[in-house]
Amino acid sequence: MVETPLLDTIKVPSDLRKVPLEDLPEVCRELREYLVEVVSGIGGHLASSLGAVELTVALHYVLDTPEDILVWDVGHQAYIHKILTGRKDALPTIRQYGGISGFLKRNESEYDVYGAGHASTALSAAYGMAVARDLQNEERNVACVVGDGALTGGLCYEAINNIGSSRRPFLIILNDNQMSISPNVGAINRYLMNFAQTQLYQTFRRQVRENIDKIPRIGKPMNRLARRLEEAAKTLLTPGAFFEAMGLNYYGPVDGHNVVELVKTIRNLLTADTPVILHALTVKGKGYKLAEESPEGYHGVKPFHPDEGILPKPAGKPAYLEVFGQSLCKAAEKNPKIVAITAAMPTGTGLVPFSKQFPERFFDVGIAEEHAVVFASGLAAQGMRPGCAIYSTFLQRAFDPIVHDTALQHLPVIFCLDRAGLVGEDGPTHHGAFDLSYLRLIPEMVVSAPRNGGELRDLLTTALEYTDGPFAIRYPKAAADGFNPETEGKTLSIGSWEVLAEGSDAAILAVGSMTDPALAASQMLEQQGIHVEVVNCRFVKPMDESYLASMSERFPLVATVEENALAGGFGAGVIEWLEGAGSHNAVLQLGIPDRFITHGPRGRLLEDIGLSAEGIAGKILAGLRNQGKLPKPRVVVNRS
Amino acid sequence: MVETPLLDTIKVPSDLRKVPLEDLPEVCRELREYLVEVVSGIGGHLASSLGAVELTVALHYVLDTPEDILVWDVGHQAYIHKILTGRKDALPTIRQYGGISGFLKRNESEYDVYGAGHASTALSAAYGMAVARDLQNEERNVACVVGDGALTGGLCYEAINNIGSSRRPFLIILNDNQMSISPNVGAINRYLMNFAQTQLYQTFRRQVRENIDKIPRIGKPMNRLARRLEEAAKTLLTPGAFFEAMGLNYYGPVDGHNVVELVKTIRNLLTADTPVILHALTVKGKGYKLAEESPEGYHGVKPFHPDEGILPKPAGKPAYLEVFGQSLCKAAEKNPKIVAITAAMPTGTGLVPFSKQFPERFFDVGIAEEHAVVFASGLAAQGMRPGCAIYSTFLQRAFDPIVHDTALQHLPVIFCLDRAGLVGEDGPTHHGAFDLSYLRLIPEMVVSAPRNGGELRDLLTTALEYTDGPFAIRYPKAAADGFNPETEGKTLSIGSWEVLAEGSDAAILAVGSMTDPALAASQMLEQQGIHVEVVNCRFVKPMDESYLASMSERFPLVATVEENALAGGFGAGVIEWLEGAGSHNAVLQLGIPDRFITHGPRGRLLEDIGLSAEGIAGKILAGLRNQGKLPKPRVVVNRS
Repeated sequence: MVETPLLDTIKVPSDLRKVPLEDLPEVCRELREYLVEVVSGIGGHLASSLGAVELTVALHYVLDTPEDILVWDVGHQAYIHKILTGRKDALPTIRQYGGISGFLKRNESEYDVYGAGHASTALSAAYGMAVARDLQNEERNVACVVGDGALTGGLCYEAINNIGSSRRPFLIILNDNQMSISPNVGAINRYLMNFAQTQLYQTFRRQVRENIDKIPRIGKPMNRLARRLEEAAKTLLTPGAFFEAMGLNYYGPVDGHNVVELVKTIRNLLTADTPVILHALTVKGKGYKLAEESPEGYHGVKPFHPDEGILPKPAGKPAYLEVFGQSLCKAAEKNPKIVAITAAMPTGTGLVPFSKQFPERFFDVGIAEEHAVVFASGLAAQGMRPGCAIYSTFLQRAFDPIVHDTALQHLPVIFCLDRAGLVGEDGPTHHGAFDLSYLRLIPEMVVSAPRNGGELRDLLTTALEYTDGPFAIRYPKAAADGFNPETEGKTLSIGSWEVLAEGSDAAILAVGSMTDPALAASQMLEQQGIHVEVVNCRFVKPMDESYLASMSERFPLVATVEENALAGGFGAGVIEWLEGAGSHNAVLQLGIPDRFITHGPRGRLLEDIGLSAEGIAGKILAGLRNQGKLPKPRVVVNRS
Repeated sequence: MVETPLLDTIKVPSDLRKVPLEDLPEVCRELREYLVEVVSGIGGHLASSLGAVELTVALHYVLDTPEDILVWDVGHQAYIHKILTGRKDALPTIRQYGGISGFLKRNESEYDVYGAGHASTALSAAYGMAVARDLQNEERNVACVVGDGALTGGLCYEAINNIGSSRRPFLIILNDNQMSISPNVGAINRYLMNFAQTQLYQTFRRQVRENIDKIPRIGKPMNRLARRLEEAAKTLLTPGAFFEAMGLNYYGPVDGHNVVELVKTIRNLLTADTPVILHALTVKGKGYKLAEESPEGYHGVKPFHPDEGILPKPAGKPAYLEVFGQSLCKAAEKNPKIVAITAAMPTGTGLVPFSKQFPERFFDVGIAEEHAVVFASGLAAQGMRPGCAIYSTFLQRAFDPIVHDTALQHLPVIFCLDRAGLVGEDGPTHHGAFDLSYLRLIPEMVVSAPRNGGELRDLLTTALEYTDGPFAIRYPKAAADGFNPETEGKTLSIGSWEVLAEGSDAAILAVGSMTDPALAASQMLEQQGIHVEVVNCRFVKPMDESYLASMSERFPLVATVEENALAGGFGAGVIEWLEGAGSHNAVLQLGIPDRFITHGPRGRLLEDIGLSAEGIAGKILAGLRNQGKLPKPRVVVNRS
C-alpha cells in the first residue's frame, strides 16, 4: 500500500481547502500514487484522470463544492474527483459489480451533479444549471470541465453558441491534452495545437501590443481601428479568436499541471461576470511514465503491473471487432469503393488495420456521430460503399440521420454496431441495449446480428452486395467463435434464418449473442426430455416469414431471446408478425427488461436478467408448466 | 398568367448557360414573378426561395450541373432550383398530393443530388460527395448552399471541422439572411450580424492593411509578426476569423442579390484548390414587398392574394399548438419554476405568447435539438420544470440525450411533441411517424397523447406535477376540440385510460388523434349491429394494466389504432403486455405501415393507410369475419 498521509486528512473538498496552498503539489503526488496503485490492481480509466489531477485539485480548492456547481464532461477524467469527494476508500470497487460507477452518477454523490458517459454534454448541462441559478437568484459559481476531444462534437458548439450570447457568469475549463481517446482529428484541434506548439506566442503578443502603439492615430476612425487591432492582437495570436468569435472571454493557454498557478488563475476568473473559457494544456497520463508514452494504451485498462505495465494479450479467440476489421480489409482489397468511417474509436471498432492499409479510404471524423452518418450517406449517394463503425450506444446520436438521410433516401450505408448488448463494466451509459428497437422501427432498414465471427463476415459480405438501402450489423463486446481468416465469406439470403437444432416441444428464436446460450439451454432441457428447436435469427428485419409461417401450429411455446430491450425489440417484431398473420402461438419474450442495467461483468449482468442458458431453460420450463404442456418426465439413463 | 419569355427558353441549366450574362437580372425578375404567382395560388415556401433567386441562377450558370454537384441545405430555398431544372411546369403541383415534393428529392430529378427536410445536413453530405469524387479521381466541382439558420446546428460544425482539415476543393455558399424560420439566436449569428451591419468594414480593412505596412520591421521575428498581423487584418475585421480558424478560406461578405457579380465571384472561387466559404448577404422575401416586411409570415404560406397578401385567419377552433401555448402560460403564472425551450420554432410550437409573457424563462436555442434536451436536463437537475417543445420529427435528433441525459438520470423534463403523426404537405422528411416507438423503448419515460385540446391541458397539468422522470406529450398538427380556456386543467392518474363507448363484440384501443375516427368507426359498426368498445389510451407508457387485464376474455377482437409506425409502437406495446400476461386476445394493429409516407393533405394520407373511420370500421369487420365472429345481422329499423 502506498502511503498517503496528506490525502488521508481529506475526506471531502472542505478538508482540501484547509490544506496550505503550497502543499497542493504534494496532494497531487499522493493522488497519482494512489490512483496508479488502485487502477493497476483492478483496471479502469487511468490516463485521463492522471492528466486531470491538478485541475481537479485546483477546482475543488477554489470552488465551494457542492454549493458551487462543478460539471465534468464524461467521467474518464473524474477518478480524482471521486477520491476527493468522499470516495477514496470506495475507489477499489470502481466499475466492479456492486461498486461505484466508473463515471459520474447523480445518485452516487451530491458532488456528482450531472452524470455522463457520452462526450460533449457538459457545456449544455452546466449552462442549464447556470440559467437555473440565475432564475432562482442564487449566487453559486458554475464551472465545467471539457476535453479537447469533446470539442469535436457538435453539441459543444450548440452549447457555446447559446452560452456566448448569454453573458451569464460561467466558467469553462478546456482540458486540452490533444487527444480524446485516440489522437484528435479535425480543424479545431489542429487550430488549438498550432498555438500550443508555438513557443514564441507570448513574446509575439507583447511585441504586437507594443507595435500597435506606434501606429499613428489619425482622427476617430483610426482610434477605433487601433482598438480593434488591439483586440486582434489579444485574440488572433492566441487560440482565443475562435472562442472570442463565439462570445466567450478566452484566457490561456496555461500549464494545466501547475496547481498553484491554476488556483490563482481560477480564483481570478471566477470574478468575471461573463462566460469565460480557461485553456489548460495537460498531458494525458501525466506522472506515470508508461501512460505518458502510450496514453491511448492506458486510456481504459485491465489490471496491470505498476512497474512493468500492460503485458501483451495472450493469444486466443479474436474479438468481434477484430473479425470485423480483418474482414473489411479483405473485402476492401478487392473493392476500391469500400471506405471506413468511425467516430473517434478506431481502436475500439477494430479499424486500425484498415486505417493503415487504406489511409485514403479511412475517416475518423471525431466525436461526431451525426456527421459520420450524413457524411457516409453523401459517400453512398456517389457510389461508394461506406462502412460506418460506431458503438451501439453512440449510434443513438445519429438516429435522425439514419432515418432522414440514409433510409429515406435508400442509401446503402453499412452500419457496424460494436458493443451491442450489455458492455459490462462501463454500465448503463454505455450498454447497447436499444439498437434492435431503434433500428427496426425505421422503414427500409436491414437489421442483422451474427451468431459468431464467421457469420459476422458472412453478413458483411452480404451487406456489401446489397445496394437497396441501409444495412445494420450488430455484435457484442466479446470474443468471437467460428472465424477462420483463411476462408472466404459467403452471401446469405437476406431475411433467412437457420435452424441450429430441431425440436417439437418448444422453439427458441435467438438473436446473435443469444444463440449459444439458447443452444445450451436446449441441451439442458433435452436432459429433461424436452425437445427444443433452436433458430439462429440472424436477420431481425426482415424476418424469415416462411419459417414464421411454418411455425404456426408446431410448437406449444415459442421463446424469443435477444440481448436488447424487450420494448419494441426482436420479440416484439415476432409477435407483431404473428398477430398480423393470425397465428396465435404463445410467445415468451426474453431480453433486457424495461429499466437501465447497472455495471459489472457482462456474464453476471446477463445472468441477473435471465439471459444465461440456465435462465432461458428455466423460463421455458416454467412457460410449458404454466400451459400444462410439460412433457412427461422421461427416464434419463445415467451413463456414468 | 405572368409572361416569362426569357424563362420559357430555359428548360434545364444548360439552357440557362446560353443566356448572356447581362440578361441574368431579367431571368431573376421573371423567376420572382412566376414564383409569387404560383405560390400565392397554391401555398408553399415563399420567402426563402425569393431570397435565393440570384444565388440559384448564378450557381447553375457557373456550375456544370448535374455533372458538377450542387447540394442544398433543406429545400425551403430550392423552388428556383426546381424551376431551372426541368420542373417549371410542375411547380403548380408542388406539395400537392401526387405532385412534386416541397423539398429536394433524389428520385425526383438528377439535379436533386441529395434530399433534405431537416436543416444542417448539406455540409456533411456534400463533403461525402467531394471525398467520393476524389477517391474516384473525378474532376467535378462540389458546392453546397447553407443558410445562416442552419449554422446554429452542431452538425454543421462537425462537418466544417472535417472539411477544414481536409484541404479538398469544396465550395460553401453561406446564404446569410439573418433569419432561419424565425430570427436567429446565438453567438454565431450575432457575430455574423455585427459585421454585416458595419458599413465601414471595407474601409477599415484597407486602412489596416496600409497601416500594417508602416510598422517598422526589425529582424526575422518582426517579419513573421507582420505577416501574422496581415492575416489578422484580413480575417478579424471580417466575419472570416471564425471560419478561418476552422480551416476554411473565407470570402465576403458579398451582395447576394447582384447576380452578375455573384457569377464572377463564384467562377473565381471555383479555381481554388482548398475549401472555400463565400458569405453572401441576402434578404429573405427579396423582391416581394409583403414578404420582405414579414419574412417569417411568408416562410410557409397557404394560398394568398398576390396584391393584398395573407388575410387574417378566420376565427375557429384553436390548433393544438395554441392550446399548448396558452396552457403553459397559465401554468407558468402560478409556477415560477416553469421554463420553455424550443429549437428555432417559437411560432410553430405555440410558444410566442410565452416568450412575450415570460421573456426571462423562454429559450430559443436555435436549430440545436440535442442542446435543447441536455440544456433542459441541466435545468431540471437544478429544480426547474422545463417544457421542451420540439416537433416530433426534429426530436429524433435528440434521441440519445433523451436516453442518456434525461431518462437515465430520472430528470423531469416535459417533452411536448407538436406535429406528431402525419404532417401533410411537408411529406416524409417531416412526418412525426416514429415518436411512440422511439420514446416507448426508453426506460423511465412516460409517453402520452391527448384525444383533444382539453386533454392536452390535463396531460400538461399532470406532467407538471410529476417529478420522477421525463414525460412526453405528443399531438398532431391539427385543430383541437374540447378546450375551454376558462376552466382549469385537471390531473390524470398516470397510466389510466378512459372508456369512451362500451361494447362487447370488439374493442378499439385508440391513441390521441385516432380516438375520434375510432368513435366514428364504432358508430358505423353499430349501424350493423356490432357493439364496439372504444378506449382512449391517452397513456402509451405506462399502459392501463388493469384495463388490459380486464379485457382478456371479453372481446373476440381487439384493435389498436395509432397515428404512428406499427413497428414497436403502441400496438406492439399492447401485444407485448398481453403475451407477457398469457392473454391471447386476437389483436389487430392499425397504424402507419412500414414505409415512408408521401406528401399531401393529412386527411387523404390517413385515408390511404386505412386510418380513417371507414378504414378502421372495415378492418374490424374483416377481422371479425375472418374469425367467424361476425354477429348475425340484426334488422335495423330505418326510421326515415
